Amino acid sequence: MSPTVEVVLTAEELRKMNAYWRACNYLAVGMIYLRENPLLREPLKPEHIKNRLLGHWGSDPGQSFTWIHLNRLIKKYDLNVIYVSGPGHGAPATLANSYLEGHYSEIYPDRSQDEAGMLRFFRQFSFPGGIGSHCTPETPGSIHEGGELGYSLSHAYGAAFDNPDLIVTCVVGDGEAETGPLATSWHSNKFLNPIRDGAVLPVLHLNGYKIANPTILARISRRELEGLFLGYGYTPYFVEGNDPDTMHQLMAATMEKCILEIRSIQEQARSTGKFERPLWPMIVLRSPKGWTGPKEVDGHKVEDFWRAHQVPVLDPVTNSKSLKIVEDWMRSYKPEELFDELGRFVPELQELAPEGSRRISANLHANGGLLRKPLNLPRFQDYAVEVKTPGQKYVSPTATAATFLADVMRQNMTSFRVFGPDETASNKLDGIYKASEKIWVAEYKPEDADGTEIAVDGRVMEMLSEHTLEGWYEGYVLTGRHGFFSTYESFVHVIDSMFNQHAKWLEKSKTELGWRAPISSINLLITSLVWRQDHNGFTHQDPGFLDVVTNKSPEVVRIYMPPDANCLLSVVDHCLRSEDYYNVIVSDKQPHLTFLDMDAAVKHCTKGIGIWDWASTDAGDDPDVVMASAGDVPTMESLAAVAILKEKFPDLKIRFVNVVDLFRLMPDIEHPHGLSDRDFDSLFTKDKPVIFNFHSYASLIHKLAYRRTNHANFHVRGYKEKGNINTPLELAIINQIDRFNLAIDVIDRVSHLQKTGAHVKDWLKEQIIEHLNYAYAEGIDKPEIRDWTWPIK
Amino acid sequence: MSPTVEVVLTAEELRKMNAYWRACNYLAVGMIYLRENPLLREPLKPEHIKNRLLGHWGSDPGQSFTWIHLNRLIKKYDLNVIYVSGPGHGAPATLANSYLEGHYSEIYPDRSQDEAGMLRFFRQFSFPGGIGSHCTPETPGSIHEGGELGYSLSHAYGAAFDNPDLIVTCVVGDGEAETGPLATSWHSNKFLNPIRDGAVLPVLHLNGYKIANPTILARISRRELEGLFLGYGYTPYFVEGNDPDTMHQLMAATMEKCILEIRSIQEQARSTGKFERPLWPMIVLRSPKGWTGPKEVDGHKVEDFWRAHQVPVLDPVTNSKSLKIVEDWMRSYKPEELFDELGRFVPELQELAPEGSRRISANLHANGGLLRKPLNLPRFQDYAVEVKTPGQKYVSPTATAATFLADVMRQNMTSFRVFGPDETASNKLDGIYKASEKIWVAEYKPEDADGTEIAVDGRVMEMLSEHTLEGWYEGYVLTGRHGFFSTYESFVHVIDSMFNQHAKWLEKSKTELGWRAPISSINLLITSLVWRQDHNGFTHQDPGFLDVVTNKSPEVVRIYMPPDANCLLSVVDHCLRSEDYYNVIVSDKQPHLTFLDMDAAVKHCTKGIGIWDWASTDAGDDPDVVMASAGDVPTMESLAAVAILKEKFPDLKIRFVNVVDLFRLMPDIEHPHGLSDRDFDSLFTKDKPVIFNFHSYASLIHKLAYRRTNHANFHVRGYKEKGNINTPLELAIINQIDRFNLAIDVIDRVSHLQKTGAHVKDWLKEQIIEHLNYAYAEGIDKPEIRDWTWPIK
Repeated sequence: MSPTVEVVLTAEELRKMNAYWRACNYLAVGMIYLRENPLLREPLKPEHIKNRLLGHWGSDPGQSFTWIHLNRLIKKYDLNVIYVSGPGHGAPATLANSYLEGHYSEIYPDRSQDEAGMLRFFRQFSFPGGIGSHCTPETPGSIHEGGELGYSLSHAYGAAFDNPDLIVTCVVGDGEAETGPLATSWHSNKFLNPIRDGAVLPVLHLNGYKIANPTILARISRRELEGLFLGYGYTPYFVEGNDPDTMHQLMAATMEKCILEIRSIQEQARSTGKFERPLWPMIVLRSPKGWTGPKEVDGHKVEDFWRAHQVPVLDPVTNSKSLKIVEDWMRSYKPEELFDELGRFVPELQELAPEGSRRISANLHANGGLLRKPLNLPRFQDYAVEVKTPGQKYVSPTATAATFLADVMRQNMTSFRVFGPDETASNKLDGIYKASEKIWVAEYKPEDADGTEIAVDGRVMEMLSEHTLEGWYEGYVLTGRHGFFSTYESFVHVIDSMFNQHAKWLEKSKTELGWRAPISSINLLITSLVWRQDHNGFTHQDPGFLDVVTNKSPEVVRIYMPPDANCLLSVVDHCLRSEDYYNVIVSDKQPHLTFLDMDAAVKHCTKGIGIWDWASTDAGDDPDVVMASAGDVPTMESLAAVAILKEKFPDLKIRFVNVVDLFRLMPDIEHPHGLSDRDFDSLFTKDKPVIFNFHSYASLIHKLAYRRTNHANFHVRGYKEKGNINTPLELAIINQIDRFNLAIDVIDRVSHLQKTGAHVKDWLKEQIIEHLNYAYAEGIDKPEIRDWTWPIK
Repeated sequence: MSPTVEVVLTAEELRKMNAYWRACNYLAVGMIYLRENPLLREPLKPEHIKNRLLGHWGSDPGQSFTWIHLNRLIKKYDLNVIYVSGPGHGAPATLANSYLEGHYSEIYPDRSQDEAGMLRFFRQFSFPGGIGSHCTPETPGSIHEGGELGYSLSHAYGAAFDNPDLIVTCVVGDGEAETGPLATSWHSNKFLNPIRDGAVLPVLHLNGYKIANPTILARISRRELEGLFLGYGYTPYFVEGNDPDTMHQLMAATMEKCILEIRSIQEQARSTGKFERPLWPMIVLRSPKGWTGPKEVDGHKVEDFWRAHQVPVLDPVTNSKSLKIVEDWMRSYKPEELFDELGRFVPELQELAPEGSRRISANLHANGGLLRKPLNLPRFQDYAVEVKTPGQKYVSPTATAATFLADVMRQNMTSFRVFGPDETASNKLDGIYKASEKIWVAEYKPEDADGTEIAVDGRVMEMLSEHTLEGWYEGYVLTGRHGFFSTYESFVHVIDSMFNQHAKWLEKSKTELGWRAPISSINLLITSLVWRQDHNGFTHQDPGFLDVVTNKSPEVVRIYMPPDANCLLSVVDHCLRSEDYYNVIVSDKQPHLTFLDMDAAVKHCTKGIGIWDWASTDAGDDPDVVMASAGDVPTMESLAAVAILKEKFPDLKIRFVNVVDLFRLMPDIEHPHGLSDRDFDSLFTKDKPVIFNFHSYASLIHKLAYRRTNHANFHVRGYKEKGNINTPLELAIINQIDRFNLAIDVIDRVSHLQKTGAHVKDWLKEQIIEHLNYAYAEGIDKPEIRDWTWPIK
């Protein structure tokens, strides 16, 4: 051992910790290779090896090394620690530790702590019907899906917020560190308040290689590396080397120093109630990839090289030399010293692990539903907008929701947060700031007092990174809390892949893993919608996130398109109460007409779809045409078309249908919210033309409703990628979702109007030209369009 | 002026440069406010002001400041410079400079350099039918869409690769700097070779605020900020202050220093042929947001605060005090000194700008199609796989394509690059390394010689950031070059929003802007497909990118699903020749059956859809059923189903249709590649059951084909979000795209089989159980499934 290394562990401690680590590594290799002979009681034979070798060895030893050093300090200081495993395919480390701590067997009793259980534990890994080689929902102790890289650190911070007692250790792989989402998430420390929040201890695992390449951070100078992390607001402590004994001492000393530094920062802030943003400690662990594995195979370097990433020895079934390498490698961990004759982990090592829910694998925060308490919600009806007559008053739906959300915040000041990328105010949700300002733990200036609305104890989270916000939010709900996220519609695509991964996590948790308690839904408000992009233009017009959402399991995704402010209130309340969904709410921030009073809104939203009698002219009879809408602007334009048609064709029988819950359109056998064909037909008829005005791309309605009886008569209008700088009406017109084009659609499709309506059609075309000309001259829509209201008869 | 500031500019230079800057700022304000009286020849009246005030003032002065200092050095050193404007809504700066340089009027003659032209120039801005307030394709001199933030720096690096003479100045907004994609793209300098590549000069514009919040980088310590950029591999030079004269001297000195440093790095490397990775210079420009605008409005701080972000004075039409503020503000720039009586920019200022294509706004690299030369392509047919009989041989399509791409690389060693996130080898494209290795400009280790395949002059770009790769690639093609990008299917969603924005850019450029010359298409190969995720499982199963793609304009998106290696070759060749498309190619990396020899493949891919006679049993007659497929695995399973059906029901008339060009399914009136109804019916019949086996989510086929005559008989199988760790057959079975379930589908839908086929159906169900049991026991599919070949009769 180098004489400069501080000796923290006694020889006995060191021996035991290293033995524990050998056990972790033994199990990791066993998972990858063995289908028989788990304890190597007999010489290793080809038939003991799995037919298909899959799994990832590279980062496992370094991760287990980190975990067991956490164990020591959890016991020493009674710490409350969870572990986020960033390196994608490092599940064997987490699985091994979970198994050794006994928690794996508590959850999955057949993978018991004995020889038969160990064999099942090995076989299930990367095996059909089993589990993957990154941390999935099936992995006890994990809140983080390791499949797609980039989100470990934002998940970790999300878990730490409002958990003052918790230390979230986050191992960041140096591969993952190259992703954009990870690269910016280091700045999360500007949003962490040491008084009320817990701590994140990042461990950058600099093991040098990705699948087939060196990593950037492993190949820059020490000066640059230190600069980078100082720049991110951390004090980096380096643990570097490959000799296990030296490294144990180094890691023990360094990690303890970090924990004490965290405690000192927290104590200082908590005892005085004041703090300057600290430089938080972090660890840079530079250890060889595939540490303790084969140094060379077939003359090629493996340990400390990219070849150690996955399965270091590929052909032990067919190559006896390779079989020998695997056997020697496994036996180097001396399994006979680690497990007793029944295959149980020996007690002197087992006692190194913490107990009960102090075990990292069994920490309740990593199964957050167990800790979750429902929100204390005010009556949303109390925030209703008065609506005496439909379509007379303009109100911003989001500003209305903000009054409710402000009180939700006030009543849940330790378990509810609001997220938005620098857009909460732009999205007219700034009413929430009255309950709590935006959290900001960086420099302040005197002028901030004049309306910047930032505070060190704020609860609204704003950073210009949708990735980081979504990651924080996921981490926050996965550990049992609640939230609300608003973002610009067009740029929600930035987090498409995060949505996909969280939906997949929810589906597995909900449908297959009874031991995972339900967590709060993610509630994502999509606003600043395509139809109101007067100055942002074409780049800000993309309502296609809904297509991504509809690809995910009906068990976990919901889409709501409330047509007005009261409906939005009702939907938000519903979503805040729900569990295990990804709720997507589409509602604009601009003032829009209100249609339903609160009672009617609740009924309408509960049904999710319904006929608006007051806007219909069929008096309950068979209609000539069904006008349907989903979304606020399309609903207004549909209604305006009805108004025109009523005036021009007083005898025309129109039925008006509005859709709030988009999945109502799907068949009930495909989606739990789907309507039966009978109910669907009773709304949309079996044979009448349906002019459906849709917020998003028209094809989505066909995708949902193509099996319906009357589908051939569905004529759907929606966004057609036509736009630039436009007035609202102009944009509607060029995409043909406007009142005039809709009225033309009706004339074209209702057979008895095709002749008699010709002059009206001409008039409608003239209207279009007149309105466009006005817009091009004045830069705005004509007053009668801007202030249009539903005609009262 | 502070005595410590180096005096670089003479008093005369300073006066003129500042006057030029005043002109820029005057125009920026004019764009936001004026619809009449562009030169303020008369006192400002409410009717001169636009009805709706839209636009962004905040970052304009700092950006124009940067631009005009570049002008000075372009002239002094005859530099070749383009400018990438990162701060989303800073178009007024680019527009003003483009107008003052005369290039705007060359492109848009009606926005001439006189009073009437200036008025039109002002009016079009943020006005219906006009242009937006961020840089769009309509903006001369821009290759960068400023609407969605995060990609400026990766675009800049993409432009610099293989352009040794070019200096790409990239202004990074401190808001944008918070996004993930931007945060990691600083590391692009590890992939820049000073011998053969140009340089990027980043200017971090630290103007302090986003829409409504301070920015992180503006509120951390100087020590952290310096550390961060050192950590990213740069030497940051600070230009900080608010006094224009001082700042001009500072900027002039600093920018010159940076340019000379860049030149020195390049000369050193180029003269010796060797280099160590340098610390590249960058500028941190800390100037007030809304610099030179109103200091206060209504008692609220505006300049140097977030209130300067957009329109600083909101009500000049209705509030005479506000009108006065706007007028005073505009007159503070002294327009009468800047423009002559006809409204022309005065010659003594005009001559500060460079001339011809040295003008930043007119630099040819910013209209890359003008510089683009077609690739020198080898005959793709020479790389064909021999196919004597369909379905007998397994070949990896991507490995085959790699042999072709390697020669494409060899023949285009200064204008073609290959991109992939650490996955080129994993995607079996490592054959390309034989032509050129991976570029790596960071530390090397001795072991790298053994198979790491990195080199300072490599042309394959690998970094673990799909964002950065896509950004580089876009920047590379936007400046007139060519490329190829491969990525894992499930994680291509990471760049959904980048795809959207580039497709929008292409659509505008192609359909509305004749002056933008066509550029090379983006060629995106999606591989490591959903159906071969034996060990990665559920998180790696998402074929939904195609849904995102189909939402974009038919003018610019294409989807190809070649069923085998030869078809992939044909498709890749086609895509490499194409212009102004976003081509998406879906093809797996694993060995798959080959079906078509090269001639047949070319014919099939050219048609994009066709009947495979050799797999059909209808002998050209009316079939009983159509089996259709799109994608490699679904095609194999469909064929295997046909083989079963042929054996069990020798009289059954089956037609086999394969789809390569997915948009063939759309009606010809909706997509240029769409089939006419007549041609569609001749393939799919008007009334026979169609069992369509699809690579992705089944609903996409309905979305494309819902208008077709026979749509009601389309029974589509695809991915249903069912999966975990599965063997290939097991995964196919649980999603019902496998041979057995397809055969059952046929029996269920062909009326005369419904009774006679009952025992076969039972047998098929037994097969399913037997195969699943085998997989669960052995971890692999049964040999006859793994090695299945098409039966030869």
